[in-house]
Amino acid sequence: MRTIDWDIKKNCIVMIDQTLLPREYKVIECSTIDCLCEAIIKLRVRGAPALGAAGGFGVALAAHESKASTLDGMMKDIEATGQTIISTRPTAVNLSWGVKRVLNAVEDARNIKEARLFALDEAKAIADEDVEKNKELGEYGAMLLENGDTVMTHCNAGRLACVDWGTALGVIRSARAQGKDIKVISCETRPLNQGSRITTWELMQDKIPVTLITDSMSGHVMRMGMVDKVIVGADRITQDAVFNKIGTYTHSVVAKEHDIPFYVAAPVSTFDFERMEDEIEIELRKSEELKFFGSHQIAPLDVEVYNPAFDATPMENVSAIITENGVFYPPFLLEEVKIKI
Amino acid sequence: MRTIDWDIKKNCIVMIDQTLLPREYKVIECSTIDCLCEAIIKLRVRGAPALGAAGGFGVALAAHESKASTLDGMMKDIEATGQTIISTRPTAVNLSWGVKRVLNAVEDARNIKEARLFALDEAKAIADEDVEKNKELGEYGAMLLENGDTVMTHCNAGRLACVDWGTALGVIRSARAQGKDIKVISCETRPLNQGSRITTWELMQDKIPVTLITDSMSGHVMRMGMVDKVIVGADRITQDAVFNKIGTYTHSVVAKEHDIPFYVAAPVSTFDFERMEDEIEIELRKSEELKFFGSHQIAPLDVEVYNPAFDATPMENVSAIITENGVFYPPFLLEEVKIKI
Repeated sequence: MRTIDWDIKKNCIVMIDQTLLPREYKVIECSTIDCLCEAIIKLRVRGAPALGAAGGFGVALAAHESKASTLDGMMKDIEATGQTIISTRPTAVNLSWGVKRVLNAVEDARNIKEARLFALDEAKAIADEDVEKNKELGEYGAMLLENGDTVMTHCNAGRLACVDWGTALGVIRSARAQGKDIKVISCETRPLNQGSRITTWELMQDKIPVTLITDSMSGHVMRMGMVDKVIVGADRITQDAVFNKIGTYTHSVVAKEHDIPFYVAAPVSTFDFERMEDEIEIELRKSEELKFFGSHQIAPLDVEVYNPAFDATPMENVSAIITENGVFYPPFLLEEVKIKI
Repeated sequence: MRTIDWDIKKNCIVMIDQTLLPREYKVIECSTIDCLCEAIIKLRVRGAPALGAAGGFGVALAAHESKASTLDGMMKDIEATGQTIISTRPTAVNLSWGVKRVLNAVEDARNIKEARLFALDEAKAIADEDVEKNKELGEYGAMLLENGDTVMTHCNAGRLACVDWGTALGVIRSARAQGKDIKVISCETRPLNQGSRITTWELMQDKIPVTLITDSMSGHVMRMGMVDKVIVGADRITQDAVFNKIGTYTHSVVAKEHDIPFYVAAPVSTFDFERMEDEIEIELRKSEELKFFGSHQIAPLDVEVYNPAFDATPMENVSAIITENGVFYPPFLLEEVKIKI
């Protein structure tokens, strides 16, 4: 199944619970906004494009849930709920993009029934378009990979970060579909280990060779000549920087040191053209993520922890940005990205 | 108590079991070489200088254990046992240094009783000298730190990596003893989390302010201006490179990118003058370290893992090396390091 979808019979959101991977593959149902928000906060669903779909389906669920007897009342309900959903992960631009897109679509509705229908149709369209865009993005990105390449990646910009196919891992899937022999090095991605838990799992499902390393090994494996290219996803791209999972910036610096191309694979919806890096709030997550592994204590309980979820990689460290509209090189003229090349 | 010592009543090695920290403070007794080797392999005792003492006490224990009836027989026993001890951690030069130093001391013995005595005296001398040297090293290093500095460190080059006081953390202890306000950022140090488990614990015991981060955050915290200096320890220093815990090289590259001084604090015994980087074997550790956290599975069981224990940082990334003989700057004329300045 897709990473996140709508169950037409039960009228609820269904998703793969990514916190249980790789030990357990479990599909959970969210029939309330509380359930969805909990799932987003706990990272049961995560990854920029998947969050776009989660935001869209969230508004559809809000429209379905609303007890309002007038269209105006419903609009107020779903707008408030949209804000609640957006606030769960403030740095993730796709989440608010998905929410706003579905809210816009509902504006044309003439009654409550139409509003519910329009919301669900738009949310489904976001999901379908995501898969389509990732495949287009994958085709463009695959042109950058050569037969025999080893690609290092961080976190999970795979099909589980999207609705399907993936962005960074979608590029690798597309290159393999073209018959190229591509190997992957996956950084484990502390503190939540999306790399070791999810990226390795989904690549192994597809029989794509993958080697797991700790995040700190990136410089060493590059120095040893084990990496040909780096491809990562993005949570938000401003005029001057790429926001992605914490650790991305460090990898970009060591890649530059070793003249290894550093590619960002992200749909156009990730671009936040109007903003600069210093306008973006970086989400600070709980200290427990560094103090515990499951129930296993790994640090003094009262130690001070700094735990930003993302970092910013300045554009000068980015070799190219791969989108569904084509591959863009520096200097990035971001207004061009919106037009299919 | 010291990190590792000899119990004169029980005639055995005693050590703090560092794998249980920070949850439990437990002292274990090793009255057999098997117990010592298991403790070294499992990192119950770790850190270059502590391993020097462990090697020395190991030979003393071997002399005590030997059932040989002649001095020649005993010498053969302890030489063979020395090799067994050295082979537990091939990259750690101090371990073999400690073993060889005690083996040499025993050579002057005229009988079995003297051999046991000489071995234990020499092992104790290694431990005492280590504490003394660390305090000298700390005094030299403290001159490089200014009041108000925040120092980033990796792994644990603290008192628990030594017999007492510490190398990298010894410099910080000495600077604080001089009345300087020094704060520490500790990288958690995957995969075995010596940073989160041990460095934070020992600094908090001494009321030195410490903030815990993931290893991959090093670039980000430097870019945010949160780091004034980096100080790490070393497991082996060849003519051209510093071998230290995996991840050190990556930190050195991001430090260089941000013009942040990158200091290595290590006793002269860590220097392996005759060798070059490419002659050194880097210990590859078990894949389980990246697949499990305690009993908690965090990666597919059959995923391929690359898990080197150390990496090499080329000398051009090192701003200075702090030893008990003084602070040395590039170009490092390593023959000068052996002479006290």
